[in-house]
Amino acid sequence: MNTSSANVRIRGLSARDIRFPTSLECDGSDAIHPDPDYSCVYVLIFTNVEVKGHGITFTIGRGNELVLEAVKSLSHIIVGRDLKEMFNDFASVWRALTSDSQLRWVGPEKGVVHLAVGAMVNALWDLWAKVERKPLWKLLVDMEPEKLVSTIDWRYIGDVLTKEEAVEMLRSMKPGKEKREKEMMAHGYPAYTTAAGWLGYSQEKIERLLKEFMAKGWRHFKIKVGQDLEDDKRRCKIVREIIGPDMTLMVDANQKWDVDQAIEWMKELAPYKPKWIEEPTSPDDVLGHKAVADALRPLGIGVATGEMAQNRVIFKQLLQSNAIDYCQIDACRVGGVSEVLSIYLMAKKFNTPVCPHAGGVGLCEMVQHLQIWDYISVSGTMEDRIIEYVDHLVEHFKYPRVIKNCCYMPPKISGYSTAMWEESLRQYEFPYGSAWKDLFERGIYKDPRKGLPNYIEKGHEVEESINPTAVLAHY
Amino acid sequence: MNTSSANVRIRGLSARDIRFPTSLECDGSDAIHPDPDYSCVYVLIFTNVEVKGHGITFTIGRGNELVLEAVKSLSHIIVGRDLKEMFNDFASVWRALTSDSQLRWVGPEKGVVHLAVGAMVNALWDLWAKVERKPLWKLLVDMEPEKLVSTIDWRYIGDVLTKEEAVEMLRSMKPGKEKREKEMMAHGYPAYTTAAGWLGYSQEKIERLLKEFMAKGWRHFKIKVGQDLEDDKRRCKIVREIIGPDMTLMVDANQKWDVDQAIEWMKELAPYKPKWIEEPTSPDDVLGHKAVADALRPLGIGVATGEMAQNRVIFKQLLQSNAIDYCQIDACRVGGVSEVLSIYLMAKKFNTPVCPHAGGVGLCEMVQHLQIWDYISVSGTMEDRIIEYVDHLVEHFKYPRVIKNCCYMPPKISGYSTAMWEESLRQYEFPYGSAWKDLFERGIYKDPRKGLPNYIEKGHEVEESINPTAVLAHY
Repeated sequence: MNTSSANVRIRGLSARDIRFPTSLECDGSDAIHPDPDYSCVYVLIFTNVEVKGHGITFTIGRGNELVLEAVKSLSHIIVGRDLKEMFNDFASVWRALTSDSQLRWVGPEKGVVHLAVGAMVNALWDLWAKVERKPLWKLLVDMEPEKLVSTIDWRYIGDVLTKEEAVEMLRSMKPGKEKREKEMMAHGYPAYTTAAGWLGYSQEKIERLLKEFMAKGWRHFKIKVGQDLEDDKRRCKIVREIIGPDMTLMVDANQKWDVDQAIEWMKELAPYKPKWIEEPTSPDDVLGHKAVADALRPLGIGVATGEMAQNRVIFKQLLQSNAIDYCQIDACRVGGVSEVLSIYLMAKKFNTPVCPHAGGVGLCEMVQHLQIWDYISVSGTMEDRIIEYVDHLVEHFKYPRVIKNCCYMPPKISGYSTAMWEESLRQYEFPYGSAWKDLFERGIYKDPRKGLPNYIEKGHEVEESINPTAVLAHY
Repeated sequence: MNTSSANVRIRGLSARDIRFPTSLECDGSDAIHPDPDYSCVYVLIFTNVEVKGHGITFTIGRGNELVLEAVKSLSHIIVGRDLKEMFNDFASVWRALTSDSQLRWVGPEKGVVHLAVGAMVNALWDLWAKVERKPLWKLLVDMEPEKLVSTIDWRYIGDVLTKEEAVEMLRSMKPGKEKREKEMMAHGYPAYTTAAGWLGYSQEKIERLLKEFMAKGWRHFKIKVGQDLEDDKRRCKIVREIIGPDMTLMVDANQKWDVDQAIEWMKELAPYKPKWIEEPTSPDDVLGHKAVADALRPLGIGVATGEMAQNRVIFKQLLQSNAIDYCQIDACRVGGVSEVLSIYLMAKKFNTPVCPHAGGVGLCEMVQHLQIWDYISVSGTMEDRIIEYVDHLVEHFKYPRVIKNCCYMPPKISGYSTAMWEESLRQYEFPYGSAWKDLFERGIYKDPRKGLPNYIEKGHEVEESINPTAVLAHY
């Protein structure tokens, strides 16, 4: 911590419900989520000096309002606190956010409350990096191993990795760090694209997009499967024919299947040589993923999951039981940067490559920092590793990811790249923004404020309520 | 479905945030939750005829507002629907509530959104039982096996139990059902008490309560552990001395420990012969529970968990891997009656006794129905099975559980026993109720409406927001 942060404290926090009507174009559609409206809760932390922290949690529309409410319920835990004190013992800050003695009952460390923690912790790390005047990846790379592990809450994972082992692991990677950092600055980190393979896209659109991407040098492609077996075979065949035998095809079922069904279905797709099957079944099913992985490894297909894995305890089990071949951390679903670091360290211990989940809103911006840190400071290799890339919604970010030769180039601006343009926020704040007002007026979306009349018919027999908002819906 | 429900449809739904200031008396305090305010979201479903459904989800205070908001976000899915159609295909109703294509992102099937589903599904089952003019346990007992399994969403559990196997299992228990039902009506279902063992209680209070309970015939006692090893040893010793060698002592750590720590700590408590250690570690850690169970079984200590296990997928794994010796379902945390039924059926398959989590608000009222059904229709045995019992907050329920000779007596009133007195709701609705108004005025609790000023200082440099509620906290 440098002295510039002395006496800087958190004066306040705001959170906004930002939604983009992406379902209108089928962007992001898959077997389980046919109509996502890519959204985020956008947290702004302001201090008594100029520096601010921006943090994001990605969601796909409805439900974003719940994450916003959870940020509200948690905000008192960090407002008023001194930055220097927080960053001197960040694990305690994280513990305070995740272990409120009453709020943890509605988690713990999962779902709505944990997504809220993710946005807040990400904003704090953004603030920290800005105070240090470094992009987040560089802040992490320059941190002493002892300091870095002190930002992590080790509860519930000590049986597979201790703090001391993690320090040793980071120390052992010191040789070559400078060289790897230079390599990153020169060439960046390789990416793959999902933009050609959404389930709602027509065959013509998929072919056209694939050829466009290939012409730009892309060599790794992912498509969505799981809706209809014959259609999946047909589309896998087309993609494999277009990309040829040497490029990489990955497939993603977005939790569509039961365990046995996943195995049977993927045997049918094996001839098209997918590198991995992503989210074959419930994200909670560690043993199920293990069964799928054990059945498919002999066919050369790996199992990938993580974007819906709720916290480090689930990742611990996926890794220790060898249930996954690729670990797909999400920058928001787990409780922000601190918990993500613990997952990278466990993945290193079990030699499982991390290929982060991206796309969405701001995920590409965030995960590039994490993966670049992993290469320089943790794994030291890019073998079998690649970052997801989707090219939409980039225009809303002040400092968007930069792709060169199909690689993410290391960000140079201080912070975690999460700041959005005020104009975008004003347009897409739900349900207040001008873009939403327009969609409501044109009848394309329904204004949720009009869906819940807060009265009951006179004379209708219902227990009265003294809370005027208690009656939620009335037909 | 009898004809009386023809053309009955759901006209509306209300939900209220009900909280009791139990933390003032340390009722319910444990190693992780030192100050619970026992609370619930209270859902009322009203129809176009007189019958109404009451459903509860239990929480411990802060966070209850988030579950309430989630009920609001989900209410449109059932309002307006015809009861007969719903009960003819209840699994589809459940699937609709748990698989909204956007909302599931902030779950799925876990935490805030799943607790909300629990309250709503419980209200629907209460309504169903009332339409049939039966207590819920009797509705379940009388249901044909095919009908009963049709209320369950089998997704993600078919690898351990299929619908067809479940039908066979239920059919095989038909012999003796009438006898077992009569037995229940005559003697009820045995209970154990946690009321003497909260962590915040003084030694004098524990001793006095234990002796009072023993005088009334209680033979099974549970105490909280995990805060301090020496103190736990001291208290276990006292309890064992008071209850003697033949009565049952159970201990509960409420997720306090890491895996290795749980094993070491429990080895120290083994001399006091606890029947089980409840919640030794994270509720998400299937493999961790298995490690603890494997280490403690040779010492005669079983592992129990479930009150925080988020859904049937976690229970499936706990059961299939033999990670638990006692399965403690919670009537609200998983998505209501339908999902609970699937867990009982899986427990039967793996021969694991179910000992439900109770106490809280309304849990005793609900789980008695489930456990009585289990005895009559599923397991056919009470061996190693017992229902938790806590005697506070009973005065708020219209049809509270009846305990005779330390046994739960089968409810005789139609429904799921979840209706509360309107006077209790008016007093304890948060933050509007008269009891809360009084606590705010006396400065004992802080009114949350006063904690979040929705303005920002003039001239302070923050991005403006067009949403007047966006600024959540300001120091």
